[in-house]
Amino acid sequence: MSLHPLGWTADRRLTLLDQTLLPREERWLVPETVEAVAEAIRSLRVRGAPAIGIAAAMGLAAALRAHAAADRAGLLRALEEGAAALRAARPTAVNLGWAMDRMRRRGAATPGGAPEVLAALDAEAQAIWDEDREACARMAEHGQALLKRRSAGAAAAERAGAASRGRSAGRTRGRTGEQSQRHGDAVHVLTHCNTGFLATGGVGTALGIVHAAAQGGVALHVWVDETRPLLQGSRLTAWELARAGIPHAVLPDGAAASLMASGSVDVVLVGADRIAKNGDTANKVGTYPLAIAARRHGVPFYVAAPWSSFDPSCATGGDIPIEQRAAAEVTRPLGIAAAPEASAAYNPAFDVTPAELISGWVCERGLVQPPF
Amino acid sequence: MSLHPLGWTADRRLTLLDQTLLPREERWLVPETVEAVAEAIRSLRVRGAPAIGIAAAMGLAAALRAHAAADRAGLLRALEEGAAALRAARPTAVNLGWAMDRMRRRGAATPGGAPEVLAALDAEAQAIWDEDREACARMAEHGQALLKRRSAGAAAAERAGAASRGRSAGRTRGRTGEQSQRHGDAVHVLTHCNTGFLATGGVGTALGIVHAAAQGGVALHVWVDETRPLLQGSRLTAWELARAGIPHAVLPDGAAASLMASGSVDVVLVGADRIAKNGDTANKVGTYPLAIAARRHGVPFYVAAPWSSFDPSCATGGDIPIEQRAAAEVTRPLGIAAAPEASAAYNPAFDVTPAELISGWVCERGLVQPPF
Repeated sequence: MSLHPLGWTADRRLTLLDQTLLPREERWLVPETVEAVAEAIRSLRVRGAPAIGIAAAMGLAAALRAHAAADRAGLLRALEEGAAALRAARPTAVNLGWAMDRMRRRGAATPGGAPEVLAALDAEAQAIWDEDREACARMAEHGQALLKRRSAGAAAAERAGAASRGRSAGRTRGRTGEQSQRHGDAVHVLTHCNTGFLATGGVGTALGIVHAAAQGGVALHVWVDETRPLLQGSRLTAWELARAGIPHAVLPDGAAASLMASGSVDVVLVGADRIAKNGDTANKVGTYPLAIAARRHGVPFYVAAPWSSFDPSCATGGDIPIEQRAAAEVTRPLGIAAAPEASAAYNPAFDVTPAELISGWVCERGLVQPPF
Repeated sequence: MSLHPLGWTADRRLTLLDQTLLPREERWLVPETVEAVAEAIRSLRVRGAPAIGIAAAMGLAAALRAHAAADRAGLLRALEEGAAALRAARPTAVNLGWAMDRMRRRGAATPGGAPEVLAALDAEAQAIWDEDREACARMAEHGQALLKRRSAGAAAAERAGAASRGRSAGRTRGRTGEQSQRHGDAVHVLTHCNTGFLATGGVGTALGIVHAAAQGGVALHVWVDETRPLLQGSRLTAWELARAGIPHAVLPDGAAASLMASGSVDVVLVGADRIAKNGDTANKVGTYPLAIAARRHGVPFYVAAPWSSFDPSCATGGDIPIEQRAAAEVTRPLGIAAAPEASAAYNPAFDVTPAELISGWVCERGLVQPPF
């Protein structure tokens, strides 16, 4: 059922599925140089915080084999340069810098000449991938338990409880009479962007929990935010869910709030690109308004991310750099001009959700709470 | 500068600009039958609550001329049937039913045969248009004053005041460190969907205020929500602003909340499709999450709509029917498949913003407050 977005070729080059072409076409690329790997990351041919860390490590290990005839110092210089170039490809996801630091340290700590260092880098890249796959499996297990406890009745009771506590007290859920969009007794999960096997080295983070719960027999209905501007929800998450046979519906990002008002969302599950020490969480733009709406409607809001996405060097969300992307992603959806040529665009890739709006963080260690 | 979306041809047929083709093409249509007018409304060739009421009235008056040889009873029957068919074309906007009721009443109240009734219907359609143009001018005047008071300093003081009052107290605006996106001393207005001259019989409702303020010399920067699924923000509002030379930038709907968090929005101005007696307001889907975010960040949130959008027969938002539209609008942006064939979609055209989140309603009578 699953299809991983990256792997090794027979001659141990990095190969990756060009996600910009999904769901129309499944084309695999083999970026052989550091620059080609960086381009694939910048252009989102591979995306998802864990997956870009893994792809950068595998791609770096493979590309450096061009320096097999160099001396140790020459190879380590190429390693430093390559790691720096890849780290700069996307500034917000911390996993990328974390993976590059692991590769740099492993190279420097390995005795011997170029062959020994290259073998160690290959092993380190493999380890980064293997550990992420294992982290996904553990997150899915922890999170699956979370969804299993959330039977339709339990979820309704929890919503009612949350609504009568704290800031949600006295709010108007249901008063505006939005019609319920519930499907039977299913647990109704809302998610944003793509956090499944396409985003990681394993089954996924937030969507990995969904995949595991569905395989474990939990009846689910997944609300998929289409996730403008690049439609990772429509193109990737819906594609994963369709392949897995999990009932789902795609919605415009702006429709999630009224869906919560109608009582049709039991839990929101999202991923993260970087989590500050205090719990403030950077994730795909559009996550923060979901969290505000979830709070208003007493809907639990969970973040799922591997421990490598937690960045203790950022005290708060204010320390997380936010990547600004090209205007054309907004003004030319799927390549077609929607706005006048003269129009500017504001296109941050991420937003920051304050910790106070987040019910809990699922990582491979279980459900955790700040400070981390 | 302005370009109205509808008008009369030389032989007094309804003509309208096909807004589904903007901004790429300016094509004018002449729908000659009631069914053709209804199709234009259903397909959003003409849209915007005031504009569809006017188009339906003008189109009905013109189409009924095919019954000029009928007797009075036959013509009045055709009037009833035509008004019912047009009213059913879009259920949420109250202006459509309101305009059809005016036409029915005027027809029934006019003595004489078919020629006299047809002349009266033509005059009534013209009056509906003229009154809307006048209402837009008055709203623009009232709202313009609102923006003029909002100098950069005043707006900042007001935001600070709002943040220290009521529900916004103690919230974390700025704490997550989103970078300011302000442009000089301009008043930064955020709007959703299209509410300008393309949506009305005059200069517009919410965007009409912007047009009038810009003409009155107020320095403005307009944040344009692209407004998925049909991109009325990118396609229509940005097009109006580009024509008018007003500085603006288009953004994904999900980016508005972090823009507010960065302190870069002074006021939100939106239109309405129907306003209940208690002030609950139905508008384009995505309006409600804007209102929730604006409250959190102490940003004033105003609705601008002609008095014909206020519906005293709806006690609350729960009484407003919400139109559900085709899945393809979501899954096939601009006609291109983005989601798998197997994926369902949730596509409500509107959401309901509770009155408690709205700072005030601007209509031709000035700034009003519920109950209406």
